[in-house]
Amino acid sequence: MTILEHYLDTRHYTEQLCKHLQPEDYTPQSAVFSSPPKWHIAHTTWFFEEMILKEFLPNYKVFDDSYGYLFNSYYNSLGERLKRENRGLITRPNHQTIFEYRAHVDAHMSELLKQETSENLWKLTILGINHEQQHQELILTDLKYTFSHNPTYPKFWNRNLIDNTSPDAGWLSVEEGIFQIGYKGDGFCFDNELGRHRVFLESFEISKSLVTNAEYIDFMNDDGYNNPDYWLDEGWDWIQNQKIKTPLYWKQKESLWHHYTLSGLQPVDPDHSITHISYYEAFAFAQWAGCRLPTEFEWEVASKQLVWGERWEWTNSAYLPYPQFKIAEGAIGEYNGKFMSNQMVLRGASTATSKNHSRNTYRNFFQPNTRWQFSGIRLAK
Amino acid sequence: MTILEHYLDTRHYTEQLCKHLQPEDYTPQSAVFSSPPKWHIAHTTWFFEEMILKEFLPNYKVFDDSYGYLFNSYYNSLGERLKRENRGLITRPNHQTIFEYRAHVDAHMSELLKQETSENLWKLTILGINHEQQHQELILTDLKYTFSHNPTYPKFWNRNLIDNTSPDAGWLSVEEGIFQIGYKGDGFCFDNELGRHRVFLESFEISKSLVTNAEYIDFMNDDGYNNPDYWLDEGWDWIQNQKIKTPLYWKQKESLWHHYTLSGLQPVDPDHSITHISYYEAFAFAQWAGCRLPTEFEWEVASKQLVWGERWEWTNSAYLPYPQFKIAEGAIGEYNGKFMSNQMVLRGASTATSKNHSRNTYRNFFQPNTRWQFSGIRLAK
Amino acid sequence: MTILEHYLDTRHYTEQLCKHLQPEDYTPQSAVFSSPPKWHIAHTTWFFEEMILKEFLPNYKVFDDSYGYLFNSYYNSLGERLKRENRGLITRPNHQTIFEYRAHVDAHMSELLKQETSENLWKLTILGINHEQQHQELILTDLKYTFSHNPTYPKFWNRNLIDNTSPDAGWLSVEEGIFQIGYKGDGFCFDNELGRHRVFLESFEISKSLVTNAEYIDFMNDDGYNNPDYWLDEGWDWIQNQKIKTPLYWKQKESLWHHYTLSGLQPVDPDHSITHISYYEAFAFAQWAGCRLPTEFEWEVASKQLVWGERWEWTNSAYLPYPQFKIAEGAIGEYNGKFMSNQMVLRGASTATSKNHSRNTYRNFFQPNTRWQFSGIRLAK
Amino acid sequence: MTILEHYLDTRHYTEQLCKHLQPEDYTPQSAVFSSPPKWHIAHTTWFFEEMILKEFLPNYKVFDDSYGYLFNSYYNSLGERLKRENRGLITRPNHQTIFEYRAHVDAHMSELLKQETSENLWKLTILGINHEQQHQELILTDLKYTFSHNPTYPKFWNRNLIDNTSPDAGWLSVEEGIFQIGYKGDGFCFDNELGRHRVFLESFEISKSLVTNAEYIDFMNDDGYNNPDYWLDEGWDWIQNQKIKTPLYWKQKESLWHHYTLSGLQPVDPDHSITHISYYEAFAFAQWAGCRLPTEFEWEVASKQLVWGERWEWTNSAYLPYPQFKIAEGAIGEYNGKFMSNQMVLRGASTATSKNHSRNTYRNFFQPNTRWQFSGIRLAK
Repeated sequence: MTILEHYLDTRHYTEQLCKHLQPEDYTPQSAVFSSPPKWHIAHTTWFFEEMILKEFLPNYKVFDDSYGYLFNSYYNSLGERLKRENRGLITRPNHQTIFEYRAHVDAHMSELLKQETSENLWKLTILGINHEQQHQELILTDLKYTFSHNPTYPKFWNRNLIDNTSPDAGWLSVEEGIFQIGYKGDGFCFDNELGRHRVFLESFEISKSLVTNAEYIDFMNDDGYNNPDYWLDEGWDWIQNQKIKTPLYWKQKESLWHHYTLSGLQPVDPDHSITHISYYEAFAFAQWAGCRLPTEFEWEVASKQLVWGERWEWTNSAYLPYPQFKIAEGAIGEYNGKFMSNQMVLRGASTATSKNHSRNTYRNFFQPNTRWQFSGIRLAK
Repeated sequence: MTILEHYLDTRHYTEQLCKHLQPEDYTPQSAVFSSPPKWHIAHTTWFFEEMILKEFLPNYKVFDDSYGYLFNSYYNSLGERLKRENRGLITRPNHQTIFEYRAHVDAHMSELLKQETSENLWKLTILGINHEQQHQELILTDLKYTFSHNPTYPKFWNRNLIDNTSPDAGWLSVEEGIFQIGYKGDGFCFDNELGRHRVFLESFEISKSLVTNAEYIDFMNDDGYNNPDYWLDEGWDWIQNQKIKTPLYWKQKESLWHHYTLSGLQPVDPDHSITHISYYEAFAFAQWAGCRLPTEFEWEVASKQLVWGERWEWTNSAYLPYPQFKIAEGAIGEYNGKFMSNQMVLRGASTATSKNHSRNTYRNFFQPNTRWQFSGIRLAK
Repeated sequence: MTILEHYLDTRHYTEQLCKHLQPEDYTPQSAVFSSPPKWHIAHTTWFFEEMILKEFLPNYKVFDDSYGYLFNSYYNSLGERLKRENRGLITRPNHQTIFEYRAHVDAHMSELLKQETSENLWKLTILGINHEQQHQELILTDLKYTFSHNPTYPKFWNRNLIDNTSPDAGWLSVEEGIFQIGYKGDGFCFDNELGRHRVFLESFEISKSLVTNAEYIDFMNDDGYNNPDYWLDEGWDWIQNQKIKTPLYWKQKESLWHHYTLSGLQPVDPDHSITHISYYEAFAFAQWAGCRLPTEFEWEVASKQLVWGERWEWTNSAYLPYPQFKIAEGAIGEYNGKFMSNQMVLRGASTATSKNHSRNTYRNFFQPNTRWQFSGIRLAK
Repeated sequence: MTILEHYLDTRHYTEQLCKHLQPEDYTPQSAVFSSPPKWHIAHTTWFFEEMILKEFLPNYKVFDDSYGYLFNSYYNSLGERLKRENRGLITRPNHQTIFEYRAHVDAHMSELLKQETSENLWKLTILGINHEQQHQELILTDLKYTFSHNPTYPKFWNRNLIDNTSPDAGWLSVEEGIFQIGYKGDGFCFDNELGRHRVFLESFEISKSLVTNAEYIDFMNDDGYNNPDYWLDEGWDWIQNQKIKTPLYWKQKESLWHHYTLSGLQPVDPDHSITHISYYEAFAFAQWAGCRLPTEFEWEVASKQLVWGERWEWTNSAYLPYPQFKIAEGAIGEYNGKFMSNQMVLRGASTATSKNHSRNTYRNFFQPNTRWQFSGIRLAK
């Protein structure tokens, strides 16, 4: 597959996702952290326009002067931008106009990728493709969060994102040793995976399977949300203040647990992997179970012998730079490094992750109270 | 005009307003106080369904069971409802479905109004019509507030709501005396206009004209927003905390004052009446001008000799019950009475007020920091 | 009694109150609205120094340059000042130093009042005396509020502020007519009582007695705090958000109602007048009782035939200027007028009000959710 | 020194610190995180009473039943407690009573330590001593924070906590290898230092000296607080929202930098080590300087060759459990482990740390925006 084909495939998949949207679904924003679909499909397009076309394609004319302001996410070096909390108020340009914007950028990217082949262009294009894949996952999770506020439980599609892979039960043992951590190879990775380095790990055991809904319900039934012994202090305050007693999206209906899904309200399947839980809840579950969460290094080392990819798995590692990590010059430098505080690393991928967007060195990261991603638990000891 | 014609005319005007909307404009909510168009057009429809059809039309079947939850505004006696701040997240039902809902209710209202003529039905229908007219004004003001957050200044239409009526300058003198206050007649009025009663007024003078933009700019240029002497204590705190230095929607562009209107960003016309100001600003302007605001009683007494209707005019009267005001039984009792605290009365009407929806006994009311209505200033002394 | 004697008597009474304080009681502040004793005794002293001694006594030297910053309450025209919420952090100057400050100012005031007799000096001194009397009441109510946060229920003294005067039951009828409202006479009054003017009142009835604890418990037992029908919309939100189910300071102990008093936790006496309730609660009680609250005009007119002074009585009048009310020039102008928004008038006085500080034209005022004053209910219909 | 002598010495030092306090200084609380002196001296006493005397001394009677509620800090397993934000409102018991409480507990601890010598008693007593030493440092830092809100800059004492040790300049190089991390020995350490384990470190260099005020002023003068490139995203938001432009306690006076100290307002000495800065500021400074902060493991390995103890040194390590860390059973288990989220590790000690309370394995921890401790910067690369 040429890079142009890869580009067009990725762009096309975003548009396939949008087939399930009605015009009114494109705009609203249900939380500061959860952006509207229109913003995602415009922002990923702006990324190619801003980082590539303006730089590489002579005489390129931007589609609309105001889009830099509207669709910049968080790049301080690229100027003023719309306040993040106001993304849901931008009804115009409407979604048709944004699809014209996408077509405009795609046409020029195609023209460019046919004529030029510099390594720098290649690198930025691959970055833009991976960036768009990240936003494909966010389109699904953000929309789910917005739809969940609608008491009629709208259906996005009739499809089940939760495919339980039912791996073997039991524990995998790993012997102590020095291990290489971080990405190695010729393919794409994000800058935060670089700085390959050695880590010493004591011997450990890691579970072959993810925690299931049934196991989590046991924790709930054993007063898990009411016993401070299991919880980090901040986690305990958080569940008290937010009155949290279940994973996100769970509701009891005629005494049975249901959860909102992109296919509407569904009964909770006890054999499926628990999802939409915070680090605080993952930590408390592990305490209750007499275990702990793995570190991101243990996870990476064990990953070759694990079945993974169904849930983003909370690790007990804070999101911090690897040795020799350097923040890149310019706007690209704002992609990852500046978020390295107060976040925990998640490893793996989820059922909502786009194809070809997983690596066992991938470092996802969220604040410990984050729940709207497809996050789950794997135990260690 | 029969009541059915009046009903259909009113409903039709709402739909005329919607002609200017794109699908994505129907949903977003820019503030707790500012509801989306779709909510307005569904809520006014729900009002007829809930208060009239369910009561008067035998075997009436509600269009959709979930709409009572979605489109109840604040009637505690009518059960649980969507949280007000979540109105902007209801992308579905979409606007087409809501227009079907409107058609369904209109068909049944027509059927009912052709066959039954009880006084109680007449009264509730007239109330529903006036209720819809109130929301017609809100559709315009709420949408203006939402669009104002869009840095591209969208145009709703190409029309100017601000028709300056240029009345005579000068002061109208009214001699002291006992006056009747409140509605009298056979037409419609809201319950808060009833309890007609006598009020003694000392002699006063009231301005024949509204304060203009030019006069307000004088106040601004004379450090009006920086001198605490002119301001109520709460008003001073409010402009400090919110960093307020101008009326709502004003922006300086190449050193000229512009303001956002439903026809886009426009230069401020010095001869037009000032609008989109709070009670705090109206009070401060009056202090600066060495005058005061009229009470609602002075306004009502003088109104027959005044040109009014262009701006909602802040009075110096708190929104409180007239003697003998009684809160009605049932849901209708929640229409007005429960809001009688911490609000100030505005009299008159505005360029956004629907035709046939003005009376000189009409009591509009808002918190003193409210600015998104077409509010203005008339001085007294 | 000469004005000097009046001055010294008032100052002496403040110090008598302080006899019940331990050094650590002088400093803490339990809410923005509730100031520490040391601040009160310094601020009232600063008032004489700033408004009188600096003006009238040649060569007067201020006791300490920093006190203008520390002990100015809210006078914008007198310069920068300590943030109100930080009053409880000022451990130094300690209370002994403040008593030296009081002695210093008293000595100079005595010197001044012996030698000069201008009307302006007399007026400002009387204002300063009344100002100190207001703060005497606040010393008690603010301290009660602070002590109430201490789970050991400290005793300030062994004294009962609640002397029930048991007036006759029944209703007083007043016939319609034009009445004079506002202060008239040669004595002292605040500027907000001036602008004596005529008011027309329809006939009304007003209760001879205040609502008792027993009556209020009936309201509570009849689900008064759980039925939105009785409540103003803002009041309902307030009791929901604050989880309010009783008057301030009430606690159930072995199923009996107790309340915290300055003499510790005491059983609620059913025959005593209800106190420490907000306007919202007074309004809801009146709705439940099928009555209403009197306006401040009705109260003033009826007052000559009523026993009053035990509770500040909430009226159904907003705190607004009388006709012809003018804000005075200079700092004194900030005393009352700038607070005329979002507050309700209370009439009468309370058991905590200093002697010689009551008038039937006195207008006290607080936000409708205020409860830490000795506020009560008198019904009208 | 016997354990009893060690106990009495420690208790005595706390009381020595209190010699500088006036009665009113004992109570106020200037922030949720900053407790009043009286609370500290009572809480440390309660720790011995609750954890030791109630358990080990037969027939021990608690001094006052209410103190368990008043002076428990955060032990959920020991029952309900005063809300943390209300500590500054507890004027009674007064400080004299608390000193009686201390004497009562000291007498019984002396009795107990003379008669019993079990290892468990020894361990808990040593823990209580170290706990009291931690609070000795907090008495100083919390009081400094409270006093800093007083515009008269009170002096706690006439002493300088800032003794610059002026170590050599230059970098210390450490070769890569596997290192043992964590406490080893027979003395006391906290549970979070246990779980001694191996860590692999790549080669690194660490500065022999701490960053000075002069160097930090260079950063400030080079627009350090205005350039987002240097800052973590959360740090940038924090300095924008809080309008932070300098270290805590700094003020410009006649264009010279001063800082508030426990000896009043003093000029900033350019040669002293920078202090009272957050992790965010430490990170930004390091970015600006082209370096980074050391990890806690690098720090511990290098520490034997460093001069340290003047500042708590921010590391680039999140506060997380060592391998095999186990939360202890019972109340003691709440001492450290439950705080392992969203905090960064500081190593070393400060000029305010009590004698004999430092170890190179000691792990102090605070949120990244914390500034009221004597925190400083050591660079690595």
